[in-house]
Amino acid sequence: MHRSAEPETAADFESAASALLPPEIWDFVAGGSGAETTLAANRAALDRVFLVPRVLQDVSSCSTRSTLLGRPVELPVAAAPVAYQRLFHPDGERATSRAAASAGIPFTVSTLSSVPIEQVVEAGGSVWFQLYWLRDDAATLDLVRRAEAAGCEAIVLTVDVPWMGRRLRDIRNRFALPAHVRAANIATTATAHERAGAASAVATHTSQEFASRLTWAALARLRAHTDLPVVIKGLLAPEDAERAVDHGVNAIVVSNHGGRQLDAAVAGADALPDIIEAVRGRCEVLLDSGIRSGTDVLRALALGASGVLLGRPLIWGLAVGGERGAIRVLRLLETELHDAMGLAGCENVAAARRLRTSRLPA
Amino acid sequence: MHRSAEPETAADFESAASALLPPEIWDFVAGGSGAETTLAANRAALDRVFLVPRVLQDVSSCSTRSTLLGRPVELPVAAAPVAYQRLFHPDGERATSRAAASAGIPFTVSTLSSVPIEQVVEAGGSVWFQLYWLRDDAATLDLVRRAEAAGCEAIVLTVDVPWMGRRLRDIRNRFALPAHVRAANIATTATAHERAGAASAVATHTSQEFASRLTWAALARLRAHTDLPVVIKGLLAPEDAERAVDHGVNAIVVSNHGGRQLDAAVAGADALPDIIEAVRGRCEVLLDSGIRSGTDVLRALALGASGVLLGRPLIWGLAVGGERGAIRVLRLLETELHDAMGLAGCENVAAARRLRTSRLPA
Amino acid sequence: MHRSAEPETAADFESAASALLPPEIWDFVAGGSGAETTLAANRAALDRVFLVPRVLQDVSSCSTRSTLLGRPVELPVAAAPVAYQRLFHPDGERATSRAAASAGIPFTVSTLSSVPIEQVVEAGGSVWFQLYWLRDDAATLDLVRRAEAAGCEAIVLTVDVPWMGRRLRDIRNRFALPAHVRAANIATTATAHERAGAASAVATHTSQEFASRLTWAALARLRAHTDLPVVIKGLLAPEDAERAVDHGVNAIVVSNHGGRQLDAAVAGADALPDIIEAVRGRCEVLLDSGIRSGTDVLRALALGASGVLLGRPLIWGLAVGGERGAIRVLRLLETELHDAMGLAGCENVAAARRLRTSRLPA
Amino acid sequence: MHRSAEPETAADFESAASALLPPEIWDFVAGGSGAETTLAANRAALDRVFLVPRVLQDVSSCSTRSTLLGRPVELPVAAAPVAYQRLFHPDGERATSRAAASAGIPFTVSTLSSVPIEQVVEAGGSVWFQLYWLRDDAATLDLVRRAEAAGCEAIVLTVDVPWMGRRLRDIRNRFALPAHVRAANIATTATAHERAGAASAVATHTSQEFASRLTWAALARLRAHTDLPVVIKGLLAPEDAERAVDHGVNAIVVSNHGGRQLDAAVAGADALPDIIEAVRGRCEVLLDSGIRSGTDVLRALALGASGVLLGRPLIWGLAVGGERGAIRVLRLLETELHDAMGLAGCENVAAARRLRTSRLPA
Ligand SMILES: Cc1cc2nc3c(=O)[nH]c(=O)nc-3n(C[C@H](O)[C@H](O)[C@H](O)COP(=O)(O)O)c2cc1C
Ligand SMILES: Cc1cc2nc3c(=O)[nH]c(=O)nc-3n(C[C@H](O)[C@H](O)[C@H](O)COP(=O)(O)O)c2cc1C
Ligand SMILES: Cc1cc2nc3c(=O)[nH]c(=O)nc-3n(C[C@H](O)[C@H](O)[C@H](O)COP(=O)(O)O)c2cc1C
Ligand SMILES: Cc1cc2nc3c(=O)[nH]c(=O)nc-3n(C[C@H](O)[C@H](O)[C@H](O)COP(=O)(O)O)c2cc1C
Repeated sequence: MHRSAEPETAADFESAASALLPPEIWDFVAGGSGAETTLAANRAALDRVFLVPRVLQDVSSCSTRSTLLGRPVELPVAAAPVAYQRLFHPDGERATSRAAASAGIPFTVSTLSSVPIEQVVEAGGSVWFQLYWLRDDAATLDLVRRAEAAGCEAIVLTVDVPWMGRRLRDIRNRFALPAHVRAANIATTATAHERAGAASAVATHTSQEFASRLTWAALARLRAHTDLPVVIKGLLAPEDAERAVDHGVNAIVVSNHGGRQLDAAVAGADALPDIIEAVRGRCEVLLDSGIRSGTDVLRALALGASGVLLGRPLIWGLAVGGERGAIRVLRLLETELHDAMGLAGCENVAAARRLRTSRLPA
Repeated sequence: MHRSAEPETAADFESAASALLPPEIWDFVAGGSGAETTLAANRAALDRVFLVPRVLQDVSSCSTRSTLLGRPVELPVAAAPVAYQRLFHPDGERATSRAAASAGIPFTVSTLSSVPIEQVVEAGGSVWFQLYWLRDDAATLDLVRRAEAAGCEAIVLTVDVPWMGRRLRDIRNRFALPAHVRAANIATTATAHERAGAASAVATHTSQEFASRLTWAALARLRAHTDLPVVIKGLLAPEDAERAVDHGVNAIVVSNHGGRQLDAAVAGADALPDIIEAVRGRCEVLLDSGIRSGTDVLRALALGASGVLLGRPLIWGLAVGGERGAIRVLRLLETELHDAMGLAGCENVAAARRLRTSRLPA
Repeated sequence: MHRSAEPETAADFESAASALLPPEIWDFVAGGSGAETTLAANRAALDRVFLVPRVLQDVSSCSTRSTLLGRPVELPVAAAPVAYQRLFHPDGERATSRAAASAGIPFTVSTLSSVPIEQVVEAGGSVWFQLYWLRDDAATLDLVRRAEAAGCEAIVLTVDVPWMGRRLRDIRNRFALPAHVRAANIATTATAHERAGAASAVATHTSQEFASRLTWAALARLRAHTDLPVVIKGLLAPEDAERAVDHGVNAIVVSNHGGRQLDAAVAGADALPDIIEAVRGRCEVLLDSGIRSGTDVLRALALGASGVLLGRPLIWGLAVGGERGAIRVLRLLETELHDAMGLAGCENVAAARRLRTSRLPA
Repeated sequence: MHRSAEPETAADFESAASALLPPEIWDFVAGGSGAETTLAANRAALDRVFLVPRVLQDVSSCSTRSTLLGRPVELPVAAAPVAYQRLFHPDGERATSRAAASAGIPFTVSTLSSVPIEQVVEAGGSVWFQLYWLRDDAATLDLVRRAEAAGCEAIVLTVDVPWMGRRLRDIRNRFALPAHVRAANIATTATAHERAGAASAVATHTSQEFASRLTWAALARLRAHTDLPVVIKGLLAPEDAERAVDHGVNAIVVSNHGGRQLDAAVAGADALPDIIEAVRGRCEVLLDSGIRSGTDVLRALALGASGVLLGRPLIWGLAVGGERGAIRVLRLLETELHDAMGLAGCENVAAARRLRTSRLPA
């Protein structure tokens, strides 16, 4: 037999990562909140999107190139902010940011990055800074200034975490960060590292640090505070999208945080079309939650998105092979997207966004 | 490993209870009628309700407090009437009513309570009396007077039991009450305790006692007879809801009796929206049948309900740990509801009732 | 344990029958044609029909009585024509017709009855004669005259068998009738009893005997030929229903022959509503194909049918216990229907036909 | 037992073929691209099409005869182009083309046929030539001329292969053609036969040979170049169908290449109705992708198609028994179609195309 054991799909990386990582770390990345209804719905919603390809289009120079926030990217994809990446590989965000740089896509560094912003930016490429608004306003705006100074090219305000969702796997595991993994950008207490009672230490820590009193005023303040493009991440309601546009955001990420916050929240792909309609082209609209392949990227584009954020799959690559593993995941995504675009008769991303979809009822 | 064995969901209590209770008692609480189509449909209908959360709302003082029948409650939840609770724990209704009192929610004591009304009311907290109209009208109205005298705060007339549904588990088990468990409020014959032929003794007893000739006149009579708020429980048709409003009820419980009466009856959550529309705010509308988590409570609120009744889960808590077990179930529900409300951007129940849902077809 | 081993549902009779009957005879009764898509769809279609019960109706004298073809019946149910019943029990049609008589419902004797018409009628009760139009027109009309003479009260013309559908189980079994089971009413050749090639001998025999050139003229001829009520069985298209009404039929049986003729034919319960609409009360409309319980009968009534035919379940009863077994099946059906009607707030069949349904998409 | 072991359905041939063929060859024929979403959707879409049969039509001389491209056929079916058939049986296309001839249906010989066009045509019967436009235009038009000279009766231009889809089974198997199987009509390099890296050699070869820069101009050129009927194969968008009509094609094959090209492409049967509507009878419309039985052919006709192409099932027959195996598959299809047409009350293909369908939501 000549059977190749190479990973050929994101699912291959997923199984490899699940075999490699300690169970409670695997659970931390894989899990969703509550009954994981939304985690499952994210996939189901994408799987129900069928594409109506076009034929006899010259796709000999079909290209996945596009722009995000007005800047050129090799793929209409950015790395989603994922906290504490040294959990998955000693190189953590250093590895994934380099991988994103070499794939020609933006890397979003989390407020809860386990590598300091500055070191991430050093890796080269375009870096976006994901902001969790802290209880301390001044500290929050300091973080923004620090990101600007380091050379980040956008601020991504995540708005779906007044506190951390009930992730039952972490709660049952009484999950706590190992000593060597820390939130490198913010003042940390011991909380995130200490098992206490039947709780997730990470959730407890988050609740202590994050502001749950956040309102639209915070967005206004951020908008006034920085000249960088501002992205709002974690919207699902068209009314909120309208309001975000009114606040001058440059992009919206339609997202349910990969099924990790409100369980029973509508799937990203199900929420997307209404938001596209509400926004009427006044800012970019990205999708995340459940994207696993180039086909999924094409589905998002066909539904009208400008691009997507990629969450867990990059982490699987990181866990499996550090920077090289992450690069292979992104190359796979590019191969798949290029393949799917060409087969759908799309020579570029603009054409892909004009494809019709045929959505089956659930 | 640091895996916690604590129950973190209602399903955890369910498995624990199913392991603890004798099979025929487990079947009595778990089962539905006929092919259990409606029992399953209750869950499926809730699982198809997805929520569209709002963002950037100050949820730092998010509260689950509300009112039911005009009186303050800690949660928009009441304990559903469940017969013969001493089957599940020696303390029976004494334990669950205390648990409800300490959680700050009303407890509904059944006509078929295994603890006398007066002793239930003594437990403290708000108690509602659930009325099954007996063959003997005078005895029925006496029961109402007795409930008033004892201090019950509402009368809940159950209208979906002209007789007991065909619960096949009980029939196959030839289920009969053990000697120490009796209907403490009504005159009992031996029937409920004697196995006879291939039948459920409990069903036989019910048929002997209950009136199947009940009409809307009974509701009018009840309305005239008492100054307490009157709740009608077991409606699924909008036309019936209209008529109940015309009869001056204070609340309607949209319910199919947890799938225990008409098999193939429409799921509660599927019936709810039409009833909300028909009622047009003229009385409170509560939902039961299938509620298992705070997320489900939020689903019911988002569909327009004022609150829910909680049936089986409280019994699971009772079976597992008496009063303490029941309290833990209610605390869990509160934790989950608070968490879900905050993550959905709702600072109070009024906001939750304004959430939009995204219902998938079955 | 006091677990009762009594059959409490049609499914219990089904398992018992399947254990008792020789495999190839079981396959003959259980099977459908082709991929058995329609066989499965019949159940799925009924399972998707949910009922909206009414409350506070006096159901103390709830009755399942009704009329079929203008004559009183204890249940709105007739025994469907089923060929060769001596395959399942030595008493064959004698047993099932007696069971129908004692349950107060009509029995439909098949052209392919294994007991002569006259002996079936002797059993007492109302007997309908099911007619397969034979290649020989004169022989066909003779059969009708013979049925009239014997005392049959209606002629049921089956129109969905120009030839027998491809029932793969029978084909794989090379099914042939045992010597002692014969079509007692028509001239038989040896064909039905001889295994020949990879075929069902029963199918071969049918093709030899039945007319595949049948048109509406045959119905007109039958209508002119007899004064008995004429029923047309095996319609699924509203246009055909209209035409049948124009031909003066007294009733239509919406049926796909229990999934035994055209595989991929629409399920009976899915076809019913359009036909009810097309017929506009100008004749009775009955449903068969998949009816298994009193709940299913109520579903059919709520969808607008006047009643149903019961196919396989009666055969299961016959196989399990001859006449007594068949009676138990019918009693069970009555118990279930009475129970369901009362729980749905219907004191009679007319009320049941006014129930609203809530149909889920497939 | 008299159980027959004869194959009675396409699925029987499928299991037999899967047991006989080497795993990597089985994978080559069975597989689809990507997650095989579309491969599965093809079946699901057909399974959701239910038919509304008509009754009392004289079907005694029911005939499956029809015309395709204006010429008489015994069945409204043509053999789909399938490459490299000597993989499955030493006789390859010689066997299947003879089988098609004896069944009285057209055989489509692929550009990638493993038997030269001329030898295929010699087998007798109507042969269509399937054209893949090569990188070299002159070579492409030479192929057309050669097909004309050999006596092919139509040119079928396949437009859904700018390159080969990502068929993961082949990639994992590093699938390469065995030495004795070659593309007999086109100049071949060694590529298709050499395992190299983690890739399908067949895909690599295809990409080297095929033009991905194809536009509608190519179709215009082909139309001008030949007097034979021109068929365009691989359309799913109604807009493309309109455009094809404007280019003077004689027929359109609605197809997603059996789920082997764009994964997540809409199922053929789901795309068909919109295309029928767009075409408004201006050319023939055929369907392929997922057809497995006469019932499926009838479904396609009822949805408005003029006929279907049959892909994998013929290959299963070939693998199982060479020419005889392929003939048995086609006879089975004819038997099934005849049976289904008659049971649906259709005496001919025109009547079948007037059948109504009842499509369930997915
Ligand atoms: C382990 C993990 C950590 C995450 N950390 C953050 C974070 O720090 N900030 C943030 O905005 N989103 C965070 N997310 C959410 C992702 O940015 C993204 O929304 C989500 O992963 C997308 O879904 P997917 O994983 O199904 O692609 C995290 C997700 C995971 C899986
Ligand atoms: C064991 C059991 C006993 C019940 N007894 C009564 C009762 O006495 N009176 C009543 O109105 N409802 C009774 N119910 C129905 C509940 O009040 C409630 O409608 C139902 O349990 C809600 O469904 P859920 O259990 O799925 O939450 C009973 C339910 C169960 C499970
Ligand atoms: C074993 C068997 C034999 C049948 N024979 C006849 C028959 O002789 N004439 C007829 O009109 N229908 C016949 N039918 C069809 C039934 O009358 C009826 O339409 C069908 O059984 C209804 O579906 P159900 O079995 O799912 O209830 C037969 C059905 C079965 C299962
Ligand atoms: C092994 C294999 C080889 C194929 N080769 C060709 C080909 O050379 N040219 C072409 O147009 N289509 C080709 N097809 C696609 C078929 O013509 C047809 O569209 C498809 O098989 C229909 O789906 P079905 O197999 O589910 O019936 C091939 C399909 C298979 C399975």
